[in-house]
Amino acid sequence: MIGRLREEVCALHAELIRWGLVTWTAGNVSARVPGEDLLVIKPSGVGYHELTPANMVVCDLKGTLVEGEHSPSSDTEAHAYVYRNMPEVGGVVHTHSPYATAWAARGEPIPCSITAMADEFGGDIPVGPFALIGSDAIGRGIVETLRGHRSPAVLMRQHGPFTIGRTAKAAVKAAVMCEDVARTMHFARQLGSVERLPAAAVDSLHDRYQNVYGQQKGAR
Amino acid sequence: MIGRLREEVCALHAELIRWGLVTWTAGNVSARVPGEDLLVIKPSGVGYHELTPANMVVCDLKGTLVEGEHSPSSDTEAHAYVYRNMPEVGGVVHTHSPYATAWAARGEPIPCSITAMADEFGGDIPVGPFALIGSDAIGRGIVETLRGHRSPAVLMRQHGPFTIGRTAKAAVKAAVMCEDVARTMHFARQLGSVERLPAAAVDSLHDRYQNVYGQQKGAR
Amino acid sequence: MIGRLREEVCALHAELIRWGLVTWTAGNVSARVPGEDLLVIKPSGVGYHELTPANMVVCDLKGTLVEGEHSPSSDTEAHAYVYRNMPEVGGVVHTHSPYATAWAARGEPIPCSITAMADEFGGDIPVGPFALIGSDAIGRGIVETLRGHRSPAVLMRQHGPFTIGRTAKAAVKAAVMCEDVARTMHFARQLGSVERLPAAAVDSLHDRYQNVYGQQKGAR
Amino acid sequence: MIGRLREEVCALHAELIRWGLVTWTAGNVSARVPGEDLLVIKPSGVGYHELTPANMVVCDLKGTLVEGEHSPSSDTEAHAYVYRNMPEVGGVVHTHSPYATAWAARGEPIPCSITAMADEFGGDIPVGPFALIGSDAIGRGIVETLRGHRSPAVLMRQHGPFTIGRTAKAAVKAAVMCEDVARTMHFARQLGSVERLPAAAVDSLHDRYQNVYGQQKGAR
Repeated sequence: MIGRLREEVCALHAELIRWGLVTWTAGNVSARVPGEDLLVIKPSGVGYHELTPANMVVCDLKGTLVEGEHSPSSDTEAHAYVYRNMPEVGGVVHTHSPYATAWAARGEPIPCSITAMADEFGGDIPVGPFALIGSDAIGRGIVETLRGHRSPAVLMRQHGPFTIGRTAKAAVKAAVMCEDVARTMHFARQLGSVERLPAAAVDSLHDRYQNVYGQQKGAR
Repeated sequence: MIGRLREEVCALHAELIRWGLVTWTAGNVSARVPGEDLLVIKPSGVGYHELTPANMVVCDLKGTLVEGEHSPSSDTEAHAYVYRNMPEVGGVVHTHSPYATAWAARGEPIPCSITAMADEFGGDIPVGPFALIGSDAIGRGIVETLRGHRSPAVLMRQHGPFTIGRTAKAAVKAAVMCEDVARTMHFARQLGSVERLPAAAVDSLHDRYQNVYGQQKGAR
Repeated sequence: MIGRLREEVCALHAELIRWGLVTWTAGNVSARVPGEDLLVIKPSGVGYHELTPANMVVCDLKGTLVEGEHSPSSDTEAHAYVYRNMPEVGGVVHTHSPYATAWAARGEPIPCSITAMADEFGGDIPVGPFALIGSDAIGRGIVETLRGHRSPAVLMRQHGPFTIGRTAKAAVKAAVMCEDVARTMHFARQLGSVERLPAAAVDSLHDRYQNVYGQQKGAR
Repeated sequence: MIGRLREEVCALHAELIRWGLVTWTAGNVSARVPGEDLLVIKPSGVGYHELTPANMVVCDLKGTLVEGEHSPSSDTEAHAYVYRNMPEVGGVVHTHSPYATAWAARGEPIPCSITAMADEFGGDIPVGPFALIGSDAIGRGIVETLRGHRSPAVLMRQHGPFTIGRTAKAAVKAAVMCEDVARTMHFARQLGSVERLPAAAVDSLHDRYQNVYGQQKGAR
C-alpha cells in the first residue's frame, strides 16, 4: 500500500506542473495511508523533475519522519494536522498558484459567480487566517475554515491555497480548479462587477456535480 | 462512419488542450453522425490524456446513450438540443476557456473591434441567458441566441462559451478563435476604450473570410 | 535558392508558435527571393503543424501565384507591396499576437520606456492606419508608417502588427520582440504610469544594439 | 572545473526558458570560476536552443574574452563588476522577465506581502538606478543596491532584474522566484491594495527558509 501511494503521490506532483500551479520546488501533495497513522509527502526543496516514487517521504501524523532518505516538505506539519483532525480527508495539496495566491494576498474570498465554482466548491472559496510556519497554526487555520464548509479549498491569507479531498487525486483536482476559477474570476472582475449566483442555483449545481457527474457516483 | 467520427472527435479534444481552452476534465466536443439521429461526444469526467476513439460515446438526439461503455458528457443534453433544432450544425463545442468565461461572467458581449473578430464572427459575440443544467434550458438558450446570428459562438451567462459549426472541426476553430479574441479584447479594454469597427467594414471582412480565405471555398 | 527559402520560411513559422504569437491558422511569414521579383509565403488557412517546405507558396511581387499547389496567404498582397516599395526589406511577418494587437485595437503606439525597446525598435512602436484587405491599402499603410522610421514593427489599427527585416529571420525576431515589449509595457501601465526613456539614451542603446550586439556586425 | 562550469551554465539557461523568463536571445547566466579571476557566461545573441557547453564563453573579471569562439554576452561587464566587488557571489543572472520588468519600468519596489517573498527575498525587492550599458554603471548600480540587502534580486530601473547567488543555480532560482512573486503581486494589486507582512513575520520566515528548508543546511 505504501509503495502504491509513493507512486501515486509522485505522479500527482506532475499534475501541479502540467496545470501551471507551482514554481521551482514550491508546492506539495500528500496522501493519508489508509488504516495507519501515516502520510506520504514530497521531500523538501527537491525539484519537480527529480521526484521519484523512491524519494517520496513517509511521516507519522505528527509530521515525524518514519521512512525515506530525505527531509519531508516543510509544510508537513500542516498536512499532518489536517489528517489528525479531519478523518474524512485522504489527501492534502498546497501551492502558491498565482491567481489564487493573489486573492489570498488581498484576503478576499473568491465569489461564487460562475457555474464551475458552484460545481466544484459549492459557494465562495473562503479565506483562512494568516499563520506562521513552525507550529500548529497553519493546520488549525485550515481545519477551522474548512470544517462544515462545502469548499475543499481555503486561501490562507498572504500565503496561498490549501486543498483537501477524500483522495490525493481529489485534492489535486481541487487545487487545479481553484486556480482555474481564481483566474477566471480575476479576469471577470478586472473589467467590471460580477454578481454571485443565486443560492438555490449554487445548491442545485453542486448537488448534481457531486452526485451525477463523471463515471461512478461518489468516485471523485 | 461512426468509427471515423470517434477518431475525429477524440483528436479534436487534443486541440482544446493545445490552445489552452480547458482544465482537468471540463469541456467537450461533439459531432453529428450525418444522416442518422446520432451524435458522438466525450465521456463524462474523463481526463484529456485518457481519451481514446474507443471511449467516445454515441448518443441519440435526446441525449440517451446508444453505444459506449461510459456515461456521456453531462452537457450532452445541450448538444443534442442544438442538433435537433439547427439541422445545418454538424459540430458543437463547450468550454470554460478563461477569457471568454470572464466576459460571460459579466454578461457582456465581446465588441467587434478588430478584424479577426469580423472575419470569424461577423460582429459581436453575443451573450445567452443564464440556464441551469438538467433540462432543455441551456440548449434553448444557445439556439435562441445563435439562430439568425452570424456568430458561431455564444457566451452563456455566468457559465461559458458554446460554439457551433458545419463540422466538429469548424466548431473547435470557433471555440479557439473565441478565446483568442476574448483575450485580445480583454487586454485592449484594460488600458482604455476601443471603438467597434464600422458595420460596412465588418460585412466586407466577414464575407471575404467566409468565401475567399483558405484553400477551398466553403471548406471551413 | 527557392528550395532553401521554402525550408527557411517553413521553419520560421514554428517560431511564431514557439513564442505564442499565433492561433489556429492566422499569421504568416514571407521571404523575398534575392535577385528575383518573387517571394515565398505561407499557404492560406493551413494549420501550423501541417506546414512543410513543399506546401510553401511562391508568388510574384504582385501577389500572383507562380509555384505551389495551394493558394497563398490572404495577406500576400500586403507583403508584396512592401517588397515592391522597400527594396532593403528581405522578410515580412504578420501576426495577431495578443498584446500587440491590443495596443493596435486602441490605436495607441507602444511608448519606448524600457531598454529592450530602445535596443530593437529605436523608439516607440508606431500605429498605422485602419485598412481593409483586398487592395493596396494595407501595404501602403505599412510602408508609409515604417519608411524613415527606426522601428521594424507597425501596429495596423484595429488589426495587428506587421514587421519587416533585412531577412525573414530578422522580421520574425522583430515580431517576437514586438509582442514581448507590448506585453511588458501592458503590465507596466496596468499599475501606474511609465516615463519614456530620454532620447539620447534611446539613440545610444539602439546604436550599440544594432552595431555591437551578437556575433557578427550587421548579421542580424 | 571550467568544463564542468560550461555544462552547468549551459544547462541553467534551459531553466530560463522552462520558467518563461526569456525571449529570443535575451537573458544570460554566469558562474564564477572558483579560485580564479574568471567567469563562464552565455555568448552574445545566440538562441537558447543553440547553446552547448562548448559555445559558452570564458572571460576574466574585467569582461575580456579568455577562451571561446564567440563574443561574450553584452552584459558581461555588469556580471564581471559584481564578481569583482562581491566576493561571496558565485553566480549572476539577468533577464527581462515580463512581470519583474514591469515593476522595473515603473521604478517600483515589489512589496513583501506574501510568505513566498519573505522566504526567498527577506523583504521588498528593491529598485536600482537607470544605467546605460557600456561602462561600469550597471554593475555599480547592482552592487550598491544589493550590498547589505537580504534580497538576491534588484530591479534595474526601466531595464529589468539582475539576481545573484552563492552559486549560479542559486542565482537562477532567485530569478525564477523574482518573476513568480512579481507576477503574483501584480495580480494581487490589480484588484485592490495589499498590506506588507509585519517585519517580525518576515524575519522569522526568512530565517527559517534560509536555514531549515530543503535537504542540507546551507546547500541552496
